[in-house]
Amino acid sequence: MTNKPNTRDAILDTASKLFYCQGYHATGLNQIIKDSESPKGSLYYYFPDGKEELALACINRTSENMSRDLRCYMDNGGSAGEAVSDLLHGIAREAEKSAYEGLVPLSFWLAVETSGISDQLQQACRSVFLDWQNVIGERLVRDGFQEEEAVRKASATVSLIEGALLQALTCKEGGPLLAAAHAAAELLNRPAEK
Amino acid sequence: MTNKPNTRDAILDTASKLFYCQGYHATGLNQIIKDSESPKGSLYYYFPDGKEELALACINRTSENMSRDLRCYMDNGGSAGEAVSDLLHGIAREAEKSAYEGLVPLSFWLAVETSGISDQLQQACRSVFLDWQNVIGERLVRDGFQEEEAVRKASATVSLIEGALLQALTCKEGGPLLAAAHAAAELLNRPAEK
Repeated sequence: MTNKPNTRDAILDTASKLFYCQGYHATGLNQIIKDSESPKGSLYYYFPDGKEELALACINRTSENMSRDLRCYMDNGGSAGEAVSDLLHGIAREAEKSAYEGLVPLSFWLAVETSGISDQLQQACRSVFLDWQNVIGERLVRDGFQEEEAVRKASATVSLIEGALLQALTCKEGGPLLAAAHAAAELLNRPAEK
Repeated sequence: MTNKPNTRDAILDTASKLFYCQGYHATGLNQIIKDSESPKGSLYYYFPDGKEELALACINRTSENMSRDLRCYMDNGGSAGEAVSDLLHGIAREAEKSAYEGLVPLSFWLAVETSGISDQLQQACRSVFLDWQNVIGERLVRDGFQEEEAVRKASATVSLIEGALLQALTCKEGGPLLAAAHAAAELLNRPAEK
């Protein structure tokens, strides 16, 4: 689901994992350079503004990956419910592979205690939620749901995805993601009733 | 939905709000005493171990309030779906009343950057998720759902609630909670099909 990592990706992978596992403030740039085995100077080349820029890049990459995967599953020919269900099964496999440490829920960034950038992070997370909602909502409209119902179901699906990821990482098991997959399939496959 | 605040409650209300709005580390005990207008010494009387004990008490109180509300709505005579929907509408009203600052999602505690107590906080959050799931699951079994389906639907409902709260607080609007209420009603009111 992810590209073969280049240096920038390797830095972001390592940074996300360290921020999440040991805390944003406790993670230094030197450790990110060392653990990602990236050439000295490359972190400052890609992220001249340092840690804050790195945090925003982590959020944006999570967002882009998820949106791309969502769109990809949505175009796979199945129903919207199957698409979200496939996405959640994919996340569950990835989470298990990384022993529930490689994925970072958006909620992590919302709670990061950074006085300076928290507004920017909050804005970024808001855009991410809206972006996912739009991808799902547009598909539901194409499936024949009325606009209002599509928006509502898309919002609930985003809640389901983010809540399930959070529960899975907290309990370190995939059950909540699979339960959410089931629920999404039920929720999105029902024909519009109005 | 909450009792008339006594001193302990006032301390916890203030502490939760300050931790969430300005960060756990940035919040000092003196500010909590001052903002909660509680007598000097009462914080140390109720929470002799200080800030860490206070954090755990905040989580446990969130959990107890939510479990109590959940059970209360579940016993109100309506369906399980109506009960969760009523709960979410209640949360939406409370969130709006507090301008989206009085409520703290569990995810906040999961991301708090506290090296010493994070394991304890994570354990506490895990228990909370399981507790909510049990309240909902037990009711679904009473409603005639098979055990496996009840557990799955209960887990998805918890994801829906926590994800919606997170989205609502991030976007500072109640839409996600109302959308989740609708989805919960659909998800839990369907008769068992197997």
